Amino acid sequence: MSNQSSGKFITLEGGEGVGKSTNLRFITQWLDSRGIDYVQTREPGGTPLAEQLRTLLLEKREESVDPTAELLMVFAARAQHLSEVIKPALASGKWVICDRFTDATYAYQGGGRGLDRALISQLEQTVQGDLRPDRVLLLDLDPEVGLQRAASTGEADRFESEQSAFFTKVRAAYRERAAAAPQRYAVIDASQPLGEVQARLAQELEDIAGAA
Amino acid sequence: MSNQSSGKFITLEGGEGVGKSTNLRFITQWLDSRGIDYVQTREPGGTPLAEQLRTLLLEKREESVDPTAELLMVFAARAQHLSEVIKPALASGKWVICDRFTDATYAYQGGGRGLDRALISQLEQTVQGDLRPDRVLLLDLDPEVGLQRAASTGEADRFESEQSAFFTKVRAAYRERAAAAPQRYAVIDASQPLGEVQARLAQELEDIAGAA
Ligand SMILES: Nc1ncnc2c1ncn2[C@@H]1O[C@H](COP(=O)(O)OP(=O)(O)O)[C@@H](O)[C@H]1O
Ligand SMILES: Nc1ncnc2c1ncn2[C@@H]1O[C@H](COP(=O)(O)OP(=O)(O)O)[C@@H](O)[C@H]1O
Ligand SMILES: [Mg+2]
Ligand SMILES: [Mg+2]
Repeated sequence: MSNQSSGKFITLEGGEGVGKSTNLRFITQWLDSRGIDYVQTREPGGTPLAEQLRTLLLEKREESVDPTAELLMVFAARAQHLSEVIKPALASGKWVICDRFTDATYAYQGGGRGLDRALISQLEQTVQGDLRPDRVLLLDLDPEVGLQRAASTGEADRFESEQSAFFTKVRAAYRERAAAAPQRYAVIDASQPLGEVQARLAQELEDIAGAA
Repeated sequence: MSNQSSGKFITLEGGEGVGKSTNLRFITQWLDSRGIDYVQTREPGGTPLAEQLRTLLLEKREESVDPTAELLMVFAARAQHLSEVIKPALASGKWVICDRFTDATYAYQGGGRGLDRALISQLEQTVQGDLRPDRVLLLDLDPEVGLQRAASTGEADRFESEQSAFFTKVRAAYRERAAAAPQRYAVIDASQPLGEVQARLAQELEDIAGAA
């Protein structure tokens, strides 16, 4: 779905501490300045039930979590988020700006956990139908740098507690996704000073807003 | 998987108030009397994470729950339950007696909610591989009678609060499943006095224990 008669669906992606939350605020300020109506949301989460699933996903626990169980929880939260928030917003002409979406599933559960990409793709089709983001803003950064940045923002959750090999695979999977569909992805060097990252983001937003 | 070199996997199925929990106790007493080692468990649930998912599934909420989200939560809990509890128990030679399993998904999410059976079957294959119960003990009862019985055991949850048409479809879906594979299902008339239900259950258990 190109969402041509509806709002734009934009997702922010990247590993831990790349600057997704920080730049989300920049993006919403940009949208406000243009008078564009939008919904700002995040995954996993975005509805009360989906946020409860987020809590279960992020919580560190004694029990080891089966990777397929984790994957199904992520897509359960996504199905709820789509039906309650994202699809209604896009249908009413609003833009949707989402902190993580299905690329994160390919990166974390596919790349990080090693789950079969064909299974992820099957669930994507089941849950999303033809709906895909209009543009994915991928903040690309060495995971060591990102984890250092993230360390300052609170205690590590179940994902942040993974080993560095996990994050190397996450980053590689994100980059692979972007390389396979360059027209839908903006890969932004997140090691740059924030001002330069945001100049790139503003260019992308101009481009998206200008597209039919 | 016929579990021939491992424990038997037995599930108790049926609508609200048919007597699953009551008869689970009868079954475990029977197993105790034979000195058979078993694990008694339930779905959704059976591990700490899966029980948290159960709580999210059963809780009545303001938000309407997307049927696909519900289905994926059920299978997420099942994936966790299988990897942490059911498969290790069967592999070690224990029997597993489970209050509800995948037939309940076909009955509630398939029959009740009207979700595509092919999707359920795809998820069943993804999560279970070839593992299926050795015998399904289906307690069959008019849902009006079952709901009256269940009403005495506490406040109605999100499923128990459904309309009667929902439960009619649940019962029909259970019976269809049993009719399609009669060798794996024991359909037991749960309107009979408890003593007669349990005489039937004892016969089934003898039969299962006798099978290679
Ligand atoms: N380009 C940047 N250069 C330096 N620090 C940054 C940059 N972008 C974000 N940060 C800082 O990194 C930390 C993590 O950023 P955050 O937006 O929370 O990342 P994410 O949401 O991707 O995990 C914050 O302290 C933030 O101020
Ligand atoms: N065959 C039966 N005849 C009459 N009452 C029964 C019978 N089986 C169970 N009950 C009663 O019905 C109620 C619900 O039984 P329960 O085992 O909790 O059902 P379920 O677990 O299937 O929802 C309980 O009060 C139980 O004592
Ligand atoms: Mg963030
Ligand atoms: Mg019960």
